[in-house]
Amino acid sequence: MSTLEGQVDAVGRGARSAAAAMAMASAAVRTDALSRIFNGLAAASEAILAANAEDIAAARAGGMSDALIDRLTLTPARIRDMADAVATIAAQPDPVGEEMARWTRPNGLDIARVRVPIGVLAVIFESRPNVTADAAALAIRSGNAAILRCGSDCLRSSLAIAEVVAAGLRDAGLPPTAVQLIDTPDRAAVGLMLGGLNGTIDLLIPRGGKSLVARVQAEAKVPVLGHLEGLCHSFVHAAADIDMARAVVVNAKMRRVSVCGATETLLVDRDAAPRLLPPIAADLIAAGCALRGDDGARAIVPNMAAATEDDWSTEYLAPILAVALVDGVEGAAAHIRRHGSGHTEAIITEDAAAADRFVQMVDSAIVLVNASTQYADGGEFGFGGEIGISTARLHARGPVGAEGLTTYKYVVRGSGQVRP
Amino acid sequence: MSTLEGQVDAVGRGARSAAAAMAMASAAVRTDALSRIFNGLAAASEAILAANAEDIAAARAGGMSDALIDRLTLTPARIRDMADAVATIAAQPDPVGEEMARWTRPNGLDIARVRVPIGVLAVIFESRPNVTADAAALAIRSGNAAILRCGSDCLRSSLAIAEVVAAGLRDAGLPPTAVQLIDTPDRAAVGLMLGGLNGTIDLLIPRGGKSLVARVQAEAKVPVLGHLEGLCHSFVHAAADIDMARAVVVNAKMRRVSVCGATETLLVDRDAAPRLLPPIAADLIAAGCALRGDDGARAIVPNMAAATEDDWSTEYLAPILAVALVDGVEGAAAHIRRHGSGHTEAIITEDAAAADRFVQMVDSAIVLVNASTQYADGGEFGFGGEIGISTARLHARGPVGAEGLTTYKYVVRGSGQVRP
Repeated sequence: MSTLEGQVDAVGRGARSAAAAMAMASAAVRTDALSRIFNGLAAASEAILAANAEDIAAARAGGMSDALIDRLTLTPARIRDMADAVATIAAQPDPVGEEMARWTRPNGLDIARVRVPIGVLAVIFESRPNVTADAAALAIRSGNAAILRCGSDCLRSSLAIAEVVAAGLRDAGLPPTAVQLIDTPDRAAVGLMLGGLNGTIDLLIPRGGKSLVARVQAEAKVPVLGHLEGLCHSFVHAAADIDMARAVVVNAKMRRVSVCGATETLLVDRDAAPRLLPPIAADLIAAGCALRGDDGARAIVPNMAAATEDDWSTEYLAPILAVALVDGVEGAAAHIRRHGSGHTEAIITEDAAAADRFVQMVDSAIVLVNASTQYADGGEFGFGGEIGISTARLHARGPVGAEGLTTYKYVVRGSGQVRP
Repeated sequence: MSTLEGQVDAVGRGARSAAAAMAMASAAVRTDALSRIFNGLAAASEAILAANAEDIAAARAGGMSDALIDRLTLTPARIRDMADAVATIAAQPDPVGEEMARWTRPNGLDIARVRVPIGVLAVIFESRPNVTADAAALAIRSGNAAILRCGSDCLRSSLAIAEVVAAGLRDAGLPPTAVQLIDTPDRAAVGLMLGGLNGTIDLLIPRGGKSLVARVQAEAKVPVLGHLEGLCHSFVHAAADIDMARAVVVNAKMRRVSVCGATETLLVDRDAAPRLLPPIAADLIAAGCALRGDDGARAIVPNMAAATEDDWSTEYLAPILAVALVDGVEGAAAHIRRHGSGHTEAIITEDAAAADRFVQMVDSAIVLVNASTQYADGGEFGFGGEIGISTARLHARGPVGAEGLTTYKYVVRGSGQVRP
C-alpha cells in the first residue's frame, strides 16, 4: 500500500466510524455543531482570507484566468454569505428520524418507514472554496459523515474552512472526522475515492463541470449523484402574456448564463410566433444575447443566425440562445423529449389546461409554469443550500438538500408474531 | 447489428414509447388493465398449464433437479395465487401523481413534489414463471413499462402468461409493448440488457440467486436495484420472554430456510444465555436444525459443532444456524455491523428501552422487534407483492412494491417570477 493509499484509507475508516456517531447524535447536537461553525467562520475570517490570498497568489503565478480567479476568491462578504448558508441549513427541519409513513397490519405488526442518514458521502469539487462549508453543513444536518476533495487550487482556503468545521464538530461533542478534507493535492486520491475506499463510501457527489461529472460517472464503483447537463428550455405558449414572456425569457437566459438552470433553447408556439417572437427577440438582443433560429424563427426575425442540428443539444453556458418554433404543447414536449437533459423546463401561458398538459408531458426534474428556469436552485426551493441538482431518475431528482441526503429503514414492532 | 441485437433493440424502443403512454394513462385505466389480466389468467389457465407441462418435460429431459422442477411447476392453485397477487396489486393505492410535498415560497412560487414513474424497468429473473405476472402487475401499477427476461427453462410458461398481460393492456387501451417478455433463449440478450439497450432502460432489477445479482451488479451500465445477501440475525436479549423467543427464533430459522429473510445467525445475550439458550437450542434441534456455536454457546449447549470465522458471514439457506453470545444490545449491534448484509435483523425483548436502542443502532433495511425475520416480504408489508428486497442504501430499501418503482419531479407554479 502506497503512502497515499494508507493516508486516504485512514480518512475512509475515520469517516465510517464517525458516520455511526453522527447517525446516533440528536438533532440538537448536530444543530449545535452547525451554530459553532457559523460563529467559527466569522471568528476565523482573517485566517481564511490569508489562506485564500496564498491560493490566489499561486493561481496567478500559474497563469489562471480572471474568471477562475474570481471563482476562487473569497472576500469578507463572501465569507459572511458562506456563514449565512450554514445558518440557513442549521435552521432547516432535521430529517433524521422522521417517520415518513406508518401503518399496522391485520396481524398487529406495526410498520414504520423512518428516515436515516445514507452514511458516508464523498464530495469531489473544483476550485470553489465555499463548497467546503456548504457540503459540510448539509452532511451534518442530514446526519452523514463526509469526505471532501477540492481542486488543488483552493486547497489552502478549503483547509482553513475545514479547520473551523472540525472545531465546531469537536466542540459540540461530535467526532471531527465526521467531515474531513483530503489534504493532499495528489490527483491519485480521486481515483481511490472513485473506487469507494474499501467500501467506506456510500455515495459519490461530483460538484463541478461536465468533465468532472462525466469522469466520476464513468469510473465510479459506488453510486453517484450527479447531473451532467442543464439543457433547459423555455416554451412561450400561444396564450402567453407577452409582457410576462419577455421578462421571464430574458431572465431565464441572461440573469446568469453560466448556471445549469439557464435556458439554452427558446421554443415558441408556431401560430402565435409572429406576434410573440419579435418583442422577445428584441429584448434578448438588447441584453446582449446572440440568437440562432430555425427556418420558421428566422422568417419572423431575420437578424438571427441559422441554427444547426447541434444547436438543439448544446449547453452554451454563454449569451447564445437557440430558437425553434413548435406546434403547441405537444410539439414543445416532443422537442424537449428529443433534445432535453431532464433538468428544468418552463412554460409561459395564461391557459391553465395547457400548463397542466405541459407539466404532465414533460418528464424533467423541474417543470415550471410562468417562472424563470433560473429558479432551479436548492436555495430558491427553500432547502437552505444544495449539494447539487440531480438529473438522475433514481433516489433524488432536482435540487438536493439535506433531505435528499437521507435514506430510510423499516422498523417493525410486534408482540411475538411468527409467520405462518 | 446482429439479428439478436436488432430484435432486442426493437423491444427497447417499444418499451420507451410505451413508457410515455403509461405515465400519461390514468390510474383507472391501469387498474382496468390489471383487472383484465386477473380475469385473463383464470381464462387462460389451461393454456398456461399446457405450456408449463412442455417446460417441465424439457427440464426433466435435461436432468433438472426435483427442487428446481418444483420451482418451475405451475398448478391450478399456483395460477390462482398468481392471479390473486395481481388483484392485490390492482387494489393498491396508485402512486402516480401523488403529491408527496407542497409548499409556497415567500416570492409566491408554489412548489410541489409529485410522484412519477421511473420509466422503463428491466427485470431479469430465473425459472419462476409467476414472476412474469408479478413484475408486470407492479410495473403497470407504478406507471412504468417493463422488459422481462426469464430463465430459458420457463420460457414457454412465461410466454403464455405474457400473452395474457399483453391482451389485458391492449383491451384497456394501453400499448401492449408496455410489458414485453424477451422471447429468445439466447443468453447474449442479457448482456445487451446490462448495457441498457441504447439508453432505453432506466433501472435493472435482477430477481434471483446470488450469482445472477452479482453478475448484474458487476456488469450493468445502468442503475441496478438488487440485493446480494440476506444474512439476517435474531438477537435474544436478556429481557426476552422465553416462550416468545423460542417460537420466534424457530420460525425465523426454520419456517422456510431458503428465503432471504431466514435467520442465519442467532445472537444470545451473554449473561442470560445459561437460562435462554438451552430451550431455544432444544427446539431448533428438534425441528431439524444443525447448530454451530462459538465457545460461549458450546459451553452451555455442548452438542453444537464449533463455528469457524466463516460461519458468521455465511448465508446458509439451509437448516443450519450459527450461534454466538454477545454482550447486550451494543454487542449484538457490533456483531451485526461486522458480519451483517444490511437486510433484516430482529431483537426479542420485553425491555422497550433496549428495543429502541437496537432499532437505532442497527442500520439494516428492516429492523424488527419481537417478530420473526421471515416477515421480510413485500406481501407481509402490505405492498401486494414485491419486485425484490433492496439492501442498497439509495432510492429504495427493504421490500420494494409499486411505490418503490416511482421517482418524483418538482412542479413549480408561478405568476411571472424572475430571479433577482
